[in-house]
Amino acid sequence: MARERRRRRGGVEEVKEVVKAPAYIKRKIPVHDPLSDVDLRIIENNADTILEEIGMVFGEDLECADIMVAAGGVRDAKDPHRVRFPRGMCREIIQASAPKQFTQHARNPERSVEIGGDNIVLSPAYGPPFIRNLDEGRRYANIQDFRNFVKLAYLSDNLHHSGGTICEPVDLPVNKRHLDMVYSHIKYSDKPFMGSVTLGERAQDSVNMAKIVFGEEFMKDNCVLLSLCNTVSPLSTDPAITGSVKVYARANQGMIITTFIVGGAMAPVSVVGVAAQSLAEVLAMMALTQLIKPGCPVVYGTFVTSMSMKSGAPTFGTAEAAQAMCISGALARRLGVPFRSGGGFTSSKVPDAQAGYEAANTLHATLDAGVNISLHVAGWLEGGLAMGYEKFVMDADQAGVLATAARGIDMSENGQAMDAIREVGPQSHFLACKHTEKNYREAFYMADLSDSQSFEQWKENGSQDMEMAANIKYKKMLADYELPPLDPEIDKQLLDYMKKVKDSYPDSNIA
Amino acid sequence: MARERRRRRGGVEEVKEVVKAPAYIKRKIPVHDPLSDVDLRIIENNADTILEEIGMVFGEDLECADIMVAAGGVRDAKDPHRVRFPRGMCREIIQASAPKQFTQHARNPERSVEIGGDNIVLSPAYGPPFIRNLDEGRRYANIQDFRNFVKLAYLSDNLHHSGGTICEPVDLPVNKRHLDMVYSHIKYSDKPFMGSVTLGERAQDSVNMAKIVFGEEFMKDNCVLLSLCNTVSPLSTDPAITGSVKVYARANQGMIITTFIVGGAMAPVSVVGVAAQSLAEVLAMMALTQLIKPGCPVVYGTFVTSMSMKSGAPTFGTAEAAQAMCISGALARRLGVPFRSGGGFTSSKVPDAQAGYEAANTLHATLDAGVNISLHVAGWLEGGLAMGYEKFVMDADQAGVLATAARGIDMSENGQAMDAIREVGPQSHFLACKHTEKNYREAFYMADLSDSQSFEQWKENGSQDMEMAANIKYKKMLADYELPPLDPEIDKQLLDYMKKVKDSYPDSNIA
Repeated sequence: MARERRRRRGGVEEVKEVVKAPAYIKRKIPVHDPLSDVDLRIIENNADTILEEIGMVFGEDLECADIMVAAGGVRDAKDPHRVRFPRGMCREIIQASAPKQFTQHARNPERSVEIGGDNIVLSPAYGPPFIRNLDEGRRYANIQDFRNFVKLAYLSDNLHHSGGTICEPVDLPVNKRHLDMVYSHIKYSDKPFMGSVTLGERAQDSVNMAKIVFGEEFMKDNCVLLSLCNTVSPLSTDPAITGSVKVYARANQGMIITTFIVGGAMAPVSVVGVAAQSLAEVLAMMALTQLIKPGCPVVYGTFVTSMSMKSGAPTFGTAEAAQAMCISGALARRLGVPFRSGGGFTSSKVPDAQAGYEAANTLHATLDAGVNISLHVAGWLEGGLAMGYEKFVMDADQAGVLATAARGIDMSENGQAMDAIREVGPQSHFLACKHTEKNYREAFYMADLSDSQSFEQWKENGSQDMEMAANIKYKKMLADYELPPLDPEIDKQLLDYMKKVKDSYPDSNIA
Repeated sequence: MARERRRRRGGVEEVKEVVKAPAYIKRKIPVHDPLSDVDLRIIENNADTILEEIGMVFGEDLECADIMVAAGGVRDAKDPHRVRFPRGMCREIIQASAPKQFTQHARNPERSVEIGGDNIVLSPAYGPPFIRNLDEGRRYANIQDFRNFVKLAYLSDNLHHSGGTICEPVDLPVNKRHLDMVYSHIKYSDKPFMGSVTLGERAQDSVNMAKIVFGEEFMKDNCVLLSLCNTVSPLSTDPAITGSVKVYARANQGMIITTFIVGGAMAPVSVVGVAAQSLAEVLAMMALTQLIKPGCPVVYGTFVTSMSMKSGAPTFGTAEAAQAMCISGALARRLGVPFRSGGGFTSSKVPDAQAGYEAANTLHATLDAGVNISLHVAGWLEGGLAMGYEKFVMDADQAGVLATAARGIDMSENGQAMDAIREVGPQSHFLACKHTEKNYREAFYMADLSDSQSFEQWKENGSQDMEMAANIKYKKMLADYELPPLDPEIDKQLLDYMKKVKDSYPDSNIA
């Protein structure tokens, strides 16, 4: 959205500019490849061995196992859901049809995003059943929180995507809340969003509601939903996800095929072991999508983290998680599909220094690894169990540091600034030279919540730490929020559709 | 130092190991070079132009200007302290004699560090006149704080160096406190340390005290002091520093020649402009050291940060500062000398989320840029004005994440973990498999202060944020501290030397 920015110059002159935030980040710096091609080939070879020797179990979904067998997979003699794959089979299927890059359309065309290539799309956290803020502490999330976070993401220049289950609205029945979530993304934002994956029928509702907004015809050839389809590591899937995969693939909509791994629990305790198993699982699932609908958009996803070997709890912001992310990014590029990973992770319960260190560590890895779309960039606390209001705006702010880094270095004449160095000479300063005058407004990205006041000013202004400043900021954002325009006819059709579905079966809180 | 680590296994068995922390980090991952060779040559060319057209002012130190003129520099017609340099002259002088890598010896030989090459040495913050802790808030630092931080650095496995002015002991007279600082580094630690640079005479005291510890003969050919010699940007020096440079160079001791730059104030507002000016200054100063004593150890240092264009205050943890650091690292490698930069910077007044984000951002850049020795890794708050007790132990902990990342990825058979994946198979878990059993102890680096407890456990245990946990940790470290052995005869000679110097002139608080 276009936003006004006021900047003060020497405390006197006031300049008004309208700065339009870009819809996504165009990366101009190289990725960080920590392994050689030889090493990466070893991991690919191990993934092939895993698929050949062990295979994948399509739990409670015989149709999916059948699809894979029809394409050349070998069914297990005892378990009809378990399929093994000749070496290279899945990779060949994927490379024959999966797009290297695709557009996810937003209802506001200026907000459509490019997934893949040199592009980076950042999205809020996904899934927390709790929220946290300074005033209330921690409590269960509700639909009002969900709407609030959709609004905050909409208002954040450094977030490009509205996400999916931005928090769980636990005040709504489990079997109907997906409708309210999809509706909230459409109503309160005009950025791209994700559909439900908790059951095939709910995926279908997401597709149906998207059709009301985008039109059935448009959706045949265009991605407007990009939804999160996780395997069940090690080496299996569950029917809620494969059910959703079938719906989205048949509708030619996008899927992020992700392995969710805590190293030492769902995969080996070593990062190279994690990477091979993860690749095997993603290869099998992605091949399935391409067999159902050749050419449907798929993203290679990994969510990998380390584990506390004392308690078994997942740990975040570690070097090992970053390494696993970088390896998987390289594997995705070699496969030729977009890559999803990263975010602003922490296991801290509060937005303290731990949250800052760990989120920053993960955001860096996100950039290093060449992530094309990152969930969980803003709000994540407590290993994903809580969505923090203050943490959300802090993270969104820091996402601007990532965006700035991704833009790379200006080697132009103006960037070289030899005129300034000549003008100023020795034993002077650059505060008032022409080059500074000309460039100061855009020279540095300033994170809004990073306090650079002197101790004395800071004390006089109330000794606020970042959490307190963030508390004020998010409330102001919500107070200033304005609804993006939505055709009243579309709004009515969406509400009618939701009512029809909700009336067609009783409420239930069984997942 | 050797330290005992206890690890609990399933809450029952207790294993006791003696883990010896390495004296420094051996880097096994590539550096991050954001610019091409062509771009770097442009910057080198610009630096040559700066030295040729503008030159360097050796403020109030005609001897240094004379040395440079004798070697081929061209004295300014009006200002005898200002010298211009033919293109390439300084680089040639440096490359003819400055070592690519050298050892800084510690009084405990097991603590000696390698400066340069693939090695990384991490050191505490330098210079803060204030301290901060949770109990007292912010107050002026004193010699007891100085000793405390020397002890904490000594006890921190992830800090390899005792640093220099770890905080300013403002309770001691300005003209004598350097003696107590050097003595404290020797007495309370056995890690390598830095000498005074606030006046040539004080540098000489540092050299004299080092001679008592290491022996005059040994110091002729070996570096035991590595001291921080900053230029005065733009393009000048002051006599305190050039006075110190002459002392250290003549004693064949190490110097970190650093430009201290807030972009937009002491150099242009653009990172490439900063890099060229910084290179020019370092080239001139390093050439001076090599003309005084060919072969004396010198390190290319940059301290670069961005500036708030609203207030003029320095800002930390920004992408632009990281870019400047990476460029300078590449320039140092092309020159063929070790590189100093980075740390755990923040402008936050307290160890909050801002401190965490900004410190982590800078630590990442430190690793990316190929820094060989980093000051300011632990304790830094408030743009360097305050040394935080809690921040110190938080940062030291996070330095372990950097060390882990630097070690790179294990591609061995054990790292590939195919046996584990075969053993476990689909729809199971890796918690009890042989590979996990064998590897879990060393699988992940666990930052001590990163809380991964569940919300419920955490609440039951007092709802501590990281600052509170760090407060407990640093106090326990100080309580458990034991003096490293020091020959009583050396101790006596040091005390005698200090007394003799202190008695020879009156106290003064004029710098």
